Amino acid sequence: MLTFCQFGAGRIGLIHAANIAAHPGAELRYVVDVNQPAAEALAAKYGAKVTTADAALADPAIKAVLIASSTDTHADLIERAAKAGKAILCEKPVDLSLARVDACLEVAAKAGVPLLIGFNRRFDPSFGTLRQELVGGAIGKLELLTITSRDPGPPPMAYIKVSGGLFRDMMIHDFDLARWLLGEEPIEVYATASCLVDPAIGQAGDIDTAAVVLRTRSGAIAQISNSRRAVYGYDQRIEAFGSGGMLRAENRTPTTVERATAAAVSRDKPLHFFLERYAEAYRAELDHFVTAVTKGEKLSVGGADGRAALALAEAALESSKSGKPVKPA
Amino acid sequence: MLTFCQFGAGRIGLIHAANIAAHPGAELRYVVDVNQPAAEALAAKYGAKVTTADAALADPAIKAVLIASSTDTHADLIERAAKAGKAILCEKPVDLSLARVDACLEVAAKAGVPLLIGFNRRFDPSFGTLRQELVGGAIGKLELLTITSRDPGPPPMAYIKVSGGLFRDMMIHDFDLARWLLGEEPIEVYATASCLVDPAIGQAGDIDTAAVVLRTRSGAIAQISNSRRAVYGYDQRIEAFGSGGMLRAENRTPTTVERATAAAVSRDKPLHFFLERYAEAYRAELDHFVTAVTKGEKLSVGGADGRAALALAEAALESSKSGKPVKPA
Amino acid sequence: MLTFCQFGAGRIGLIHAANIAAHPGAELRYVVDVNQPAAEALAAKYGAKVTTADAALADPAIKAVLIASSTDTHADLIERAAKAGKAILCEKPVDLSLARVDACLEVAAKAGVPLLIGFNRRFDPSFGTLRQELVGGAIGKLELLTITSRDPGPPPMAYIKVSGGLFRDMMIHDFDLARWLLGEEPIEVYATASCLVDPAIGQAGDIDTAAVVLRTRSGAIAQISNSRRAVYGYDQRIEAFGSGGMLRAENRTPTTVERATAAAVSRDKPLHFFLERYAEAYRAELDHFVTAVTKGEKLSVGGADGRAALALAEAALESSKSGKPVKPA
Amino acid sequence: MLTFCQFGAGRIGLIHAANIAAHPGAELRYVVDVNQPAAEALAAKYGAKVTTADAALADPAIKAVLIASSTDTHADLIERAAKAGKAILCEKPVDLSLARVDACLEVAAKAGVPLLIGFNRRFDPSFGTLRQELVGGAIGKLELLTITSRDPGPPPMAYIKVSGGLFRDMMIHDFDLARWLLGEEPIEVYATASCLVDPAIGQAGDIDTAAVVLRTRSGAIAQISNSRRAVYGYDQRIEAFGSGGMLRAENRTPTTVERATAAAVSRDKPLHFFLERYAEAYRAELDHFVTAVTKGEKLSVGGADGRAALALAEAALESSKSGKPVKPA
Repeated sequence: MLTFCQFGAGRIGLIHAANIAAHPGAELRYVVDVNQPAAEALAAKYGAKVTTADAALADPAIKAVLIASSTDTHADLIERAAKAGKAILCEKPVDLSLARVDACLEVAAKAGVPLLIGFNRRFDPSFGTLRQELVGGAIGKLELLTITSRDPGPPPMAYIKVSGGLFRDMMIHDFDLARWLLGEEPIEVYATASCLVDPAIGQAGDIDTAAVVLRTRSGAIAQISNSRRAVYGYDQRIEAFGSGGMLRAENRTPTTVERATAAAVSRDKPLHFFLERYAEAYRAELDHFVTAVTKGEKLSVGGADGRAALALAEAALESSKSGKPVKPA
Repeated sequence: MLTFCQFGAGRIGLIHAANIAAHPGAELRYVVDVNQPAAEALAAKYGAKVTTADAALADPAIKAVLIASSTDTHADLIERAAKAGKAILCEKPVDLSLARVDACLEVAAKAGVPLLIGFNRRFDPSFGTLRQELVGGAIGKLELLTITSRDPGPPPMAYIKVSGGLFRDMMIHDFDLARWLLGEEPIEVYATASCLVDPAIGQAGDIDTAAVVLRTRSGAIAQISNSRRAVYGYDQRIEAFGSGGMLRAENRTPTTVERATAAAVSRDKPLHFFLERYAEAYRAELDHFVTAVTKGEKLSVGGADGRAALALAEAALESSKSGKPVKPA
Repeated sequence: MLTFCQFGAGRIGLIHAANIAAHPGAELRYVVDVNQPAAEALAAKYGAKVTTADAALADPAIKAVLIASSTDTHADLIERAAKAGKAILCEKPVDLSLARVDACLEVAAKAGVPLLIGFNRRFDPSFGTLRQELVGGAIGKLELLTITSRDPGPPPMAYIKVSGGLFRDMMIHDFDLARWLLGEEPIEVYATASCLVDPAIGQAGDIDTAAVVLRTRSGAIAQISNSRRAVYGYDQRIEAFGSGGMLRAENRTPTTVERATAAAVSRDKPLHFFLERYAEAYRAELDHFVTAVTKGEKLSVGGADGRAALALAEAALESSKSGKPVKPA
Repeated sequence: MLTFCQFGAGRIGLIHAANIAAHPGAELRYVVDVNQPAAEALAAKYGAKVTTADAALADPAIKAVLIASSTDTHADLIERAAKAGKAILCEKPVDLSLARVDACLEVAAKAGVPLLIGFNRRFDPSFGTLRQELVGGAIGKLELLTITSRDPGPPPMAYIKVSGGLFRDMMIHDFDLARWLLGEEPIEVYATASCLVDPAIGQAGDIDTAAVVLRTRSGAIAQISNSRRAVYGYDQRIEAFGSGGMLRAENRTPTTVERATAAAVSRDKPLHFFLERYAEAYRAELDHFVTAVTKGEKLSVGGADGRAALALAEAALESSKSGKPVKPA
């Protein structure tokens, strides 16, 4: 039984806490959040207790921490948990600064604790199957990868302002998927971006629509596009084209119902947003963490992956500003 | 070059005349229709001449006739054309009376002329491919066949009254498809029918909605359902299930465009009606006729097929009235 | 908190026990099964105790029973649980004999306890959405209903022999769906059936392939077809056609991955069998039971529904033997 | 009746000649080709005569020319036909040199003759419907356009060497589609390209795999990707994403047959190559030309469009070499 302290009782924290509670090999013992009522409510729901970070990390019964608090707390909590010898599952990103990420990962590496970065999409059944078949040679050598990612609507402006911008906050998931699928590191990043969804986003110094081209040493090419607003819902698709064919993972829908009327033949819109679309992925991610930590096995996505995705995001940001391709750091 | 006289200048006649005119191995020389202006217009469009049945059949240059006139003229024209030694392509049905069909086919058989009955659906590329794969063993032995056929809307009441009723006029196509796909003759027919679309159809002694179950000696089962009105367009589908899998032929659409909006994800409705859906089939049917007659090869669907489909229609009609399964004559 | 005793620790029992354990408003206290090791294993997994039916029903802490034991025990357990005042969730069917069902339901009715019959498919999200839209008028008046249900493979012969036959064991689900969707009772049943999958099934007096036509007073028609073996997996589809259009619920698949190779463009096969396909439905069914019983609300599918579906199965069986349509009892 | 002389009796010439012959408002009078046997065969098939360019252009009965000869003859033939006062339908591209295109178009403009450049994809029913709905506001303002174009296999090396390279030979179609759909001119072009399909293509100085990003003044972004080899067939898709939703045009297939077996659920591969996929488009293109020229109406895609697409191709080529975004000339 892996006993958890969870940091963060917000929207994504609700998901993680429910998954810990439902997992036969995990137990949620503590909840920590600066928002005391949220922490109380979440703890009560799953028979856990509210405590402080210091107390939780000092408790030897706690074997693992799940960090789902705000981004600016991630690196500190990783370092403190690592020093306390806890296994760590941390929501992406480690930090918005590459230097801070490097320092933090060094601390974690020294401590030698297991660290899983929450790139949840790797655990989606459709994306996972696509990659498994790709790695298995189903389409030969990968040549062109196309990743489409669109949110149903932009987050609140308050969030946009502290998010680190579209590349570091949103497209970072796609950079991780691209690295995971390409099987080699991008050596060049070209990005172009616009503010088309909401002028307020532009006034906050961010963009809401972007296209990025990655290129690897072997000549494979990845196209990524993002929009902060798709009126038909959460649009999450991957297309991998190679010497032996193509694999596509399409959107998932609530039902398989088709309606034919005098007006049209229609089907469901995609599942609304990440809580719905990636519900299975979050469960599988937690299960991977609990199983691997319990058995002492290697985690599949670690700090170096978090660092590499951020480096691509920074390169994209720089490219979108300079108008020139950039080599990732 | 196969030189044709075409009987009938109505809706279906327009299709056939255009196909004859466009076929490199065929020529439309005469058009015959009691509606003189229609005959004149059609003949003018394709450089043909209007004439009488007697004159056309007496002209030794005419090698083939295409009979697309009203149903009550089919059997007579077949007999006259057969006696004149012409190759015959006749729209279904040969006649609404089984006795008349038998007599007519005897005349044609004695004359030894080629006779193709216009079961156009056999020439549809999707249905043809489905059958080819079925015959090729793609799904093993056929066990359950489901045929769905729905018109976009009922024909005029004037037509309904002389049509011979839904089973002989509309479902006859599905009986032919069933025979063609089952590869053995149905030995029992059960039919149930309702008047749900328009009470006037019921007042005319006909029905507009029906389901039929056919059974063969080997135990294979076919389900056929018809409706005179599908608000979303012409619904023409086949599903063949067997020991090794399932083959489905779905509807065809004008385009492949998919629309995702805040309301729904929608695609095109099916092609509107038989002129659109079976345009390719009519071309392929004519090409088969011209090629086979020119080369002296056997035609793929003959008088006996027309007779057998009508016998199933009559059995279905009797079953729907008696409420009991009927053995086809 | 609704405290359960569960009867039956077999395959379907595993599903139900897991769902009770995971439900925040339910608790699994006892497991009863003649197979003691199975009962012990299941009880251990969820912190429950193994006991006897007598002891469980005598315990006032037990508020609900879930009956997932073999079919021949259902009616007895319903009666005993009803007399003990427990709320009852019983797997279909109540019994294979209509007379026994009637007697049993009378006992349950006298006791006035809540009784839910486990027609799990009503709780499938796709089927549920289809019905909701149908009832909401999306396709006007229902005229033709087509239900397709095929198992991936036949059950063991030992099960076949005590199953009550395809109509009572397998198609009973489809009869329930048909009643639920038609919104009126079938007044006539025609069935035809074959043994095509395995001669041993025929030697045991059963059939493995069947088609049924139901007819209601208003003239609506339902077509149901079953096969005990679909090599591509569990095939579970509904098509509802009406005056205003058509609704279809297609199969569900593990992933949305599409593969395009030199050979073909392919997608996933359907989810393998009922444990996978109806996983969500079983959870929703239990949630409905727990919520309704806890709040004192009416259950959505009761003993009368179990009785009516069995009456249609018996009529179908009789029709398949006599070759004539039958009015359900 | 528009009387044509056709230049070119090769593969694409066969298509055009057949379409002219089948069009009720057009007549094929002359065929000109340096390959005399090919010219003879084509002329014989449609009752035309073989002649020389001089003779054809001197014949006042010739009202229109269709230029389907090799690319290096296009500009000369356009100029000569224009000076002779003929209406011109010319296959893309006008020429591989932008300077030559400019000179040629000036001659044509001075002559004032109708000139249609054969961007056949604009006449594809699916692409045409997509654009019509886009222009009609179905998805609001266009923000992200994704065009995928992949050939089933590379052309012969002899062709590659004179083709002008992938951007000018193949992607030029996609540049035209992008301009047509964006509704504004791209102001920046970024291209990255690889030789992944066949090293011989690289040795000939060309590439076979490429991704391009276009950007317009309003901030709309287009992604185009090309490959010279898709083992599953001709892959031609458009995805237009905007403020009000998304439109996608998927590939077209020979049939609608779906096969479900123990191995997979599969459908047809896309139509094999441009002759099949764009058969309808070629017919519609010719019909537009014949109709517009006959009625004196404006042609929908002219010399300026041919010039603009080539300018984008040249910018892409330059970008792929320099590694920097380029403004089109």
